[in-house]
Amino acid sequence: MEDIVQIKYALDTFYFLICGALVMWMAAGFAMLEAGLVRAKNTTEILTKNVALFAIACTMYLLVGYHIMYSSPEGGIFPSFGVLIGAENTVEDVLAGGDDAPYYSVASDFFFQVVFVATAMSIVSGAVAERMKLFAFLVFAVIMTGFIYPIQGFWKWGGGFLNEAGFLDFAGSGVVHMTGATAALAGVLLLGARKGKYGSNGQINAIPGANLPLATLGMFILWLGWFGFNGGSQLVVSNISDANAVAQIFVNTNAAAAGGLIAGLVVARILFGKADLTMALNGALAGLVAITAEPLTPSGLQATLIGAVGGVIVVFSVLALDKLKIDDPVGAISVHGVVGIWGLLAVCLTNSDASLTAQLMGIVVIFLWVFIASLIVWSIIKLVMGLRVSEEEEYEGVDISECGMEAYPEFTSSKK
Amino acid sequence: MEDIVQIKYALDTFYFLICGALVMWMAAGFAMLEAGLVRAKNTTEILTKNVALFAIACTMYLLVGYHIMYSSPEGGIFPSFGVLIGAENTVEDVLAGGDDAPYYSVASDFFFQVVFVATAMSIVSGAVAERMKLFAFLVFAVIMTGFIYPIQGFWKWGGGFLNEAGFLDFAGSGVVHMTGATAALAGVLLLGARKGKYGSNGQINAIPGANLPLATLGMFILWLGWFGFNGGSQLVVSNISDANAVAQIFVNTNAAAAGGLIAGLVVARILFGKADLTMALNGALAGLVAITAEPLTPSGLQATLIGAVGGVIVVFSVLALDKLKIDDPVGAISVHGVVGIWGLLAVCLTNSDASLTAQLMGIVVIFLWVFIASLIVWSIIKLVMGLRVSEEEEYEGVDISECGMEAYPEFTSSKK
Amino acid sequence: MEDIVQIKYALDTFYFLICGALVMWMAAGFAMLEAGLVRAKNTTEILTKNVALFAIACTMYLLVGYHIMYSSPEGGIFPSFGVLIGAENTVEDVLAGGDDAPYYSVASDFFFQVVFVATAMSIVSGAVAERMKLFAFLVFAVIMTGFIYPIQGFWKWGGGFLNEAGFLDFAGSGVVHMTGATAALAGVLLLGARKGKYGSNGQINAIPGANLPLATLGMFILWLGWFGFNGGSQLVVSNISDANAVAQIFVNTNAAAAGGLIAGLVVARILFGKADLTMALNGALAGLVAITAEPLTPSGLQATLIGAVGGVIVVFSVLALDKLKIDDPVGAISVHGVVGIWGLLAVCLTNSDASLTAQLMGIVVIFLWVFIASLIVWSIIKLVMGLRVSEEEEYEGVDISECGMEAYPEFTSSKK
Repeated sequence: MEDIVQIKYALDTFYFLICGALVMWMAAGFAMLEAGLVRAKNTTEILTKNVALFAIACTMYLLVGYHIMYSSPEGGIFPSFGVLIGAENTVEDVLAGGDDAPYYSVASDFFFQVVFVATAMSIVSGAVAERMKLFAFLVFAVIMTGFIYPIQGFWKWGGGFLNEAGFLDFAGSGVVHMTGATAALAGVLLLGARKGKYGSNGQINAIPGANLPLATLGMFILWLGWFGFNGGSQLVVSNISDANAVAQIFVNTNAAAAGGLIAGLVVARILFGKADLTMALNGALAGLVAITAEPLTPSGLQATLIGAVGGVIVVFSVLALDKLKIDDPVGAISVHGVVGIWGLLAVCLTNSDASLTAQLMGIVVIFLWVFIASLIVWSIIKLVMGLRVSEEEEYEGVDISECGMEAYPEFTSSKK
Repeated sequence: MEDIVQIKYALDTFYFLICGALVMWMAAGFAMLEAGLVRAKNTTEILTKNVALFAIACTMYLLVGYHIMYSSPEGGIFPSFGVLIGAENTVEDVLAGGDDAPYYSVASDFFFQVVFVATAMSIVSGAVAERMKLFAFLVFAVIMTGFIYPIQGFWKWGGGFLNEAGFLDFAGSGVVHMTGATAALAGVLLLGARKGKYGSNGQINAIPGANLPLATLGMFILWLGWFGFNGGSQLVVSNISDANAVAQIFVNTNAAAAGGLIAGLVVARILFGKADLTMALNGALAGLVAITAEPLTPSGLQATLIGAVGGVIVVFSVLALDKLKIDDPVGAISVHGVVGIWGLLAVCLTNSDASLTAQLMGIVVIFLWVFIASLIVWSIIKLVMGLRVSEEEEYEGVDISECGMEAYPEFTSSKK
Repeated sequence: MEDIVQIKYALDTFYFLICGALVMWMAAGFAMLEAGLVRAKNTTEILTKNVALFAIACTMYLLVGYHIMYSSPEGGIFPSFGVLIGAENTVEDVLAGGDDAPYYSVASDFFFQVVFVATAMSIVSGAVAERMKLFAFLVFAVIMTGFIYPIQGFWKWGGGFLNEAGFLDFAGSGVVHMTGATAALAGVLLLGARKGKYGSNGQINAIPGANLPLATLGMFILWLGWFGFNGGSQLVVSNISDANAVAQIFVNTNAAAAGGLIAGLVVARILFGKADLTMALNGALAGLVAITAEPLTPSGLQATLIGAVGGVIVVFSVLALDKLKIDDPVGAISVHGVVGIWGLLAVCLTNSDASLTAQLMGIVVIFLWVFIASLIVWSIIKLVMGLRVSEEEEYEGVDISECGMEAYPEFTSSKK
């Protein structure tokens, strides 16, 4: 019997680590997606933001975030502060059995959770691309990954009041994606649009990305990583019903991405008359975000449709945000925020435990907390060090002013 | 005892899912390989084809393909049609034991199989690159992934008449790779060569790919994904002999790729006097295709040699197809088709259960079915909507005409 | 009980294979990192070196390297020569139990080990980039992966005299990384600097890499792969304490990379006034190298700090090597060699079994063996076929002279 407990613990821990590694890989996906969708002159800087935010997220969540998120009072609103991740399970504790016995490693849990924080933060970098100061962004990353994210994470996954209220968010359409998008929205509102994006006479100028294969690679990386993101959120795989559940989650995650991609491609074709690759990519990501709040209860066909609705929404959301002159170079607010809300509502379609009230409550609470907290932090940063590069730096590209090196020094000869 | 069954089921399901995720990753590999080997002006379009075909494959196989492939009459020729993937195993069924008891999740099996279909379809996009209409291609993808592939898949892996006849194809040198290449060949024959590829006086003009790092990345992704492709095809890992088998398959898959790469590089060096990177990449892929029909019974050294022969074949096949004016921009027909046949024949070298007759029968049957069915479908598409873009669109690049956006708008200033 | 043994064997074998696949993926990381950091005109050639060295490493280690490393006399200095990898475990041997019973597949062990050899060799290609003859490099790769690496590997991991002496190197800061860097150093000293790198009046000219997104992708791939590199080096995962150990290793590997990245970024910012992306990337890799010798005993916070020290060291080491006119285009000698030494020394900080004497002995022995052996081999190659391309070839780029094709034929119009 002890052998069985040992093996199950090992299998669940290993599964957690592999899923965590897949989620970590999403950091590369965001970096490539964003680097592909900005102009060449801002590429080094967006890459620097992406690698640095990942490192900051890992460090801040180790220092304080994990403690806030998972050691705060059950059912509570106010978090407890503390440091580091706590002691590993002893063999004795595990073998003791009973409902409270741990069934996977604390360190593996931390590893899985920490890569989620980084995902949330990665969402922000795309929306503020091409004009925000690098170090202003990194200061925000410190606060976001150390405090803003963990506090709302505690409310749901840490067993806080949103969890008590019956709010359902399996793998984080809200806790991760809408959170990232909301922080991004607050930043974008303070930051303003890129020069030249919106003409004085109301026209919207497309600013094409410099490297679409890179953006496509980023989408594929995210798709792959999402199997860990959703699949790992079942938390256990070591028995028949949990294994079946994880398998269903893989199928649904894949199906939703496929549905979203097709929908994005078709809707864009109808609207614009062309097969718009960037809308196809955003459609796939929208499908993934949409299924994330509930990847288990839908059938494969339902997952395809939930994803497809996400793919439709994202196209119209991108157009709507542009009408509102909210400039989001990579569509992050639409993909992760607007579609994140759709995902949270869609839980009610297939999970009989869900209530629309609780879902709406979760959406409103997370949005308000993250938006207000972010707005305050962004505002303080703006006061202290400024958020935006100078007009001349923006014109010349932030690569030179912020990083001192071009991303493609031999491919682009002129400043654009 | 029930605990043991539960854990084995969980481990086998998890192994299936991870292998499936690796195969899914091959979609990114094909996209990068093909995007790197076409010209800049056709890159957005080939990326769009690659992402869209993957989504279509996932959706069509969910809707009808999986049912056709795995619910058709044993030993039969004619498939049964039906929809969706069927119910998941209950815990009771699994614990009931006996030879018929399922030992991994139905959903995990679907997930693993669906990414194979996408692989077969990915092979097609490369061969028809730079001149086929985007939506003509996508219509073909619907039929191919929903019907043409699953029907021949049923004949072998679904227990149909080729399986009865003793045809051996462990992970799909024939069922997947030759199938993709055969469908591509039918398309290419109807489509014709790219403008300027073959001069009027018989000379063959090299059309270099725009981005070789991308192509190299694609090859590495495929190499990695192939561990899931072949390794997962053992279907079970949860006991000593199956675990040994999976390990041997990993070693052999790796060895064959290495052998193919070295052979491709050396042969090209001898023929052309230079270290031809694209031949090295195609050599590695040829090695992988060659070992796929039987990755278990060879020793590591034998696998190296089987792969190396594949690497030699691919170089001569690429040259031969060019002589025949069969224009395949990425070498897909050679890598997956010609070497796929080699792989199927090579089964006889190390597996004493193989018979040359059965292998030849499988090759002929799959080729004829896929070629004729594809030719009919391509022909209907040609009649209804046309297969090929206009000469002017081809000259300007299909990115603008089909997708309305350039892949590298800042790197290439002139139409080439 | 036999069922338990079977499942544990299967789980440990599967874990080994997945970790090995992650390490194999590092080959793509090195290829992308190096391709991004060289100039466009030398990109095809560095890609060719990277794919070919991987294939050579796999083949040579299969033929002779694995036998040398793991079948040589315990505690010994002189290796036994022999071929191939030996027979797989029988079910009987495994079930026999006892301390000598094998607990994972021989083939999975070979697979895991072979990708380490390739890693060591990948380190070399970056340092000698842009000026070494392709086939000279490949001849060295044959000797390095077949003999030089396995012999020192035997001394430590094969149970030779360094292991007896108490030298600790968990996953290979020394056996893999310093070994690769030392072989590179010997090559670079014989090869000399790139034309134009060091001015006659003492100034050092920066030669920017052509494609920083590619370099960043390479760093992310390496980060991901390192979870397999360090995590797999625990060798067992199938019980509670080993599972906890593997989880801790994942956490520490991640933390050290994060610490190194931040340190590299901050130090470069202080020194140069800009957020230097390449120093951030090298900082992350330095963090990973630093933790590799002992990824288990540190806490997460200690790992962050060990990595951060690595990140600081790498910046100063890069500057110092340039002062010494040791031209290393990608910083490989600093990242893997200098920081590898730091990693070996840092073992003493958290592992009470370590002795500074044994660590120093290991460093000196490995350095001397690899340096002298490599110097001899490089010298013979230089005599027989020459190491360096002609001045004209170097000026025009080695892509044309060695490979006959440009990496980006449409993006770069002029020779630089």
